[in-house]
Amino acid sequence: MREPITVGLLGYGTVGQAVAGALSREREAIARAVGRPVEVGPVLVREPDRQRAGVTREQLTGDPATVLDDPRVSVVVEVMGGVDPTLDILRAALTAGTPVVTANKQLLAQHGPELFRIAAEAGAQLRFEGSVCAAIPVIKVLRESLVAADVWAVTGIVNGTTNLMLSAMRHDGLSYDEALARAQRLGYAEADPTEDVGGADAAAKMAILASIAFHSPVRLGDVPYEGIDGLHSEDVEIAADLGYEVKLLGVARRGPEGIGVRVYPALVAASHPLAAIRGADNAVMLESVGAGRITLVGPGAGGVATASAVIADVLSVLAGPGGSFLHNAPADAGWPVMADSVVPSAYYVRLSVADRPGVLAHIASRVADHGLSFRTVEQRGAGDQARLVAILHRGDEAAMAATLDSLSRLPEVRARPVLLRVIENGDER
Amino acid sequence: MREPITVGLLGYGTVGQAVAGALSREREAIARAVGRPVEVGPVLVREPDRQRAGVTREQLTGDPATVLDDPRVSVVVEVMGGVDPTLDILRAALTAGTPVVTANKQLLAQHGPELFRIAAEAGAQLRFEGSVCAAIPVIKVLRESLVAADVWAVTGIVNGTTNLMLSAMRHDGLSYDEALARAQRLGYAEADPTEDVGGADAAAKMAILASIAFHSPVRLGDVPYEGIDGLHSEDVEIAADLGYEVKLLGVARRGPEGIGVRVYPALVAASHPLAAIRGADNAVMLESVGAGRITLVGPGAGGVATASAVIADVLSVLAGPGGSFLHNAPADAGWPVMADSVVPSAYYVRLSVADRPGVLAHIASRVADHGLSFRTVEQRGAGDQARLVAILHRGDEAAMAATLDSLSRLPEVRARPVLLRVIENGDER
Repeated sequence: MREPITVGLLGYGTVGQAVAGALSREREAIARAVGRPVEVGPVLVREPDRQRAGVTREQLTGDPATVLDDPRVSVVVEVMGGVDPTLDILRAALTAGTPVVTANKQLLAQHGPELFRIAAEAGAQLRFEGSVCAAIPVIKVLRESLVAADVWAVTGIVNGTTNLMLSAMRHDGLSYDEALARAQRLGYAEADPTEDVGGADAAAKMAILASIAFHSPVRLGDVPYEGIDGLHSEDVEIAADLGYEVKLLGVARRGPEGIGVRVYPALVAASHPLAAIRGADNAVMLESVGAGRITLVGPGAGGVATASAVIADVLSVLAGPGGSFLHNAPADAGWPVMADSVVPSAYYVRLSVADRPGVLAHIASRVADHGLSFRTVEQRGAGDQARLVAILHRGDEAAMAATLDSLSRLPEVRARPVLLRVIENGDER
Repeated sequence: MREPITVGLLGYGTVGQAVAGALSREREAIARAVGRPVEVGPVLVREPDRQRAGVTREQLTGDPATVLDDPRVSVVVEVMGGVDPTLDILRAALTAGTPVVTANKQLLAQHGPELFRIAAEAGAQLRFEGSVCAAIPVIKVLRESLVAADVWAVTGIVNGTTNLMLSAMRHDGLSYDEALARAQRLGYAEADPTEDVGGADAAAKMAILASIAFHSPVRLGDVPYEGIDGLHSEDVEIAADLGYEVKLLGVARRGPEGIGVRVYPALVAASHPLAAIRGADNAVMLESVGAGRITLVGPGAGGVATASAVIADVLSVLAGPGGSFLHNAPADAGWPVMADSVVPSAYYVRLSVADRPGVLAHIASRVADHGLSFRTVEQRGAGDQARLVAILHRGDEAAMAATLDSLSRLPEVRARPVLLRVIENGDER
């Protein structure tokens, strides 16, 4: 057995400790695969004077240079999070030609294009499987298995917290607030859950996925997002009656004019592969000319699952590449990102209406005026509880917005209409 | 742009033509990813005098040496199938240090361990994504993403033909014979469907998957298999009533004593990730300590999907490895394969019984005598159509076989009992 390969660790929180733990636990398997053991060397921490389990006092440092300049370090693993000073440290490592493995979603979503460029120029690998969907190997599959498959769509449930909440609303009859409280109690949601429930977390992940899938830089700011924070459990129930599951979806499409990436809650047909994803699992469906429709499902968060992705990246760094290609920048395929780009979808509309004759006729004529048409419409409840629930055929988003506006001004419509997108199984390109 | 990389093609049937077509269609994307274009060079065919679309007369050869000895050839792609003379040709290529990409399931399942050894000794990459589940990147995920994740179970629907038939029996009410005829009409089943419906195709794929997952050689002969050829649509219907889908499963487990791999039809709980897989799709669920439960779903057959896997392998060969590790032999982790090894499962039993008092008591006492117990039992039909349908708790397979034998000798039991395994969602390790 040859001498060990040394990993420099930036950060020793939940993920960092899980990485060190797994490297130790799987020491033999890793040595078998790589031909040499892989060990943790210097560890950057905020308070190097505080002792930590699993590492010696001598390994700890408060100075990034101690990690970056250590000649034994073959790979830098960044699990400290944040953008400042992390970005500067990774710039320095890559510029020096040191391969970097990171699990930092925000850093990639905001500064990925710059880091890819530095890595490509220096011929240093930059891997980041743990930054999206934790243990699900979606980055490797996109970059390596589907790099020449002509991927045209990525659709995912990429936030486990909201999926857990939606599952609780759907299957356990909880309200939004109850579902949130449960997710917080289980440790899935933060005390301030905005990042998850508002859709920003999913948007960052979709920016990274779209960059890789379409070989074009996509930044967080390019991704309009809505969360589930305005969702009523009533709509989750009605959707179920109609044969749909409400999911927070990330949707990235490459059309003839460019790339559009969005995050929104949607009704997903029960037969769709993403409809069955329950609890805190994540799932990503990749559609391509070469490989058809491939769906990956698994744990999308947690220290151990993220550490598994980080270690896989470390081993992949060690295994290659001979050249600098394939594993670096998403070579720019020249697709523009259009923040306004929309894939037309079908729509779910719920209206609180006055329960009297002629209401439907009024509403139907407004819908028709805007060039949209009903797939189904039904009245639910009566009197004060009367609601019209409609599913409209696929149509232009601007037309739908105008329709909604027009409907909300009808005297028979008694509250702001609820609008959600509808995704069928096998919606065409 | 530097000069092209040349691929030597062995075989030019459906998959070979799809490989050549995709290399041409995705020429730009491949050149962007690899830094150089990738082109088809010499092509080995049985009848080199017969002209073929997409290749010139000069590229065709009937002599393997023309491909293997061509100094331009950087990678040999084997899509000719069969074991003889394919095995000899690939032995020669690997021995000469030429990387090999193959989609040959039978070759891998029968001679994988030998080919892995030759490849490792020569330091030549051997990749074979297309040999199992076509476009689903399960080999890459196992070898690279989960190599150090301590995988302990692989459970899959790895034969699309039978899954298509089972879907038709379940959802369209077809009989077994009707479902087979439809699969043949659609081009999914051969005129002689034995390989698919008898389970041998799935067994070969599971041998390959188990080898890679558990880092130990597993051969086709190590995998006992049953197919769906004895299945009655009646049991598919009853299973649905009870909340299960009947699937042809490949099940590979690593227990404390070694590896067990099997293929059999089973009742899969509706909430299990594999229950929802319909039509000709394949799906593989990978369970590991590091990454939890990851499920991959997608097209498991077809020329284009297989070609996509082959091309991904070619690009991965070109991208690495720097060393020879990770991408070669499943380093022997020393797990013995036990052909008799069984994971205890729950059981579904259907008995045609005489419709008279005391029958259940008789049967129940026989079951109890063998140390097994009922989870549920119900009588369906009456008179001549009377059947007892039972689900038994998890128990020893030998005990179940003895129970069945004993039951079939009861005077009240009027036909050979039907036995199927039952897989719940989240069966413990």
